Amino acid sequence: MLVLVTYDVSTQDDNGKRRLHQVAKQCEKYGQRVQNSVFECLLQPDELVILKHRLLKIMDEDKDSIRFYNLGKKYQSKIEHYGVKEAYDPEEVLIL
Amino acid sequence: MLVLVTYDVSTQDDNGKRRLHQVAKQCEKYGQRVQNSVFECLLQPDELVILKHRLLKIMDEDKDSIRFYNLGKKYQSKIEHYGVKEAYDPEEVLIL
Repeated sequence: MLVLVTYDVSTQDDNGKRRLHQVAKQCEKYGQRVQNSVFECLLQPDELVILKHRLLKIMDEDKDSIRFYNLGKKYQSKIEHYGVKEAYDPEEVLIL
Repeated sequence: MLVLVTYDVSTQDDNGKRRLHQVAKQCEKYGQRVQNSVFECLLQPDELVILKHRLLKIMDEDKDSIRFYNLGKKYQSKIEHYGVKEAYDPEEVLIL
């Protein structure tokens, strides 16, 4: 199934940038970054459990927000993209 | 149906911030901002056409990226949230 992970973090401070980078690293094991804080992950149910566990460990619960959207197996027709960067280069946004 | 709109824009420059603010304004007619650049909109099919048209007019195709995810009618069980700000205050992030 395709799971969309959206991660809201203040990247004004370096710790936020670092957490976003770590979240990206985990998500990219299962899919790709499609926007700065949006990741599409192709997962089996057990992988979703593992990924969720890892991301919740990375996040700062008092500062960040993370949302999971389960788009199921037939996700292709549910997604539309406009503008630049169909696929995102995760290194591009990390300036530490 | 619930349509998730994710909008990637460089808010480093004021024009980007302005576009994000305009996108938020349009999306919030139909739903709410759940993260800085993530909006959940409850739409009828004809409203989706109108919203899409408006957002594509606002966006800078050479700089921004916009994605639409159709979560259908039975979306409640497909969404999970962790961390801060279940609902987003759109004014909070606009510093012009």
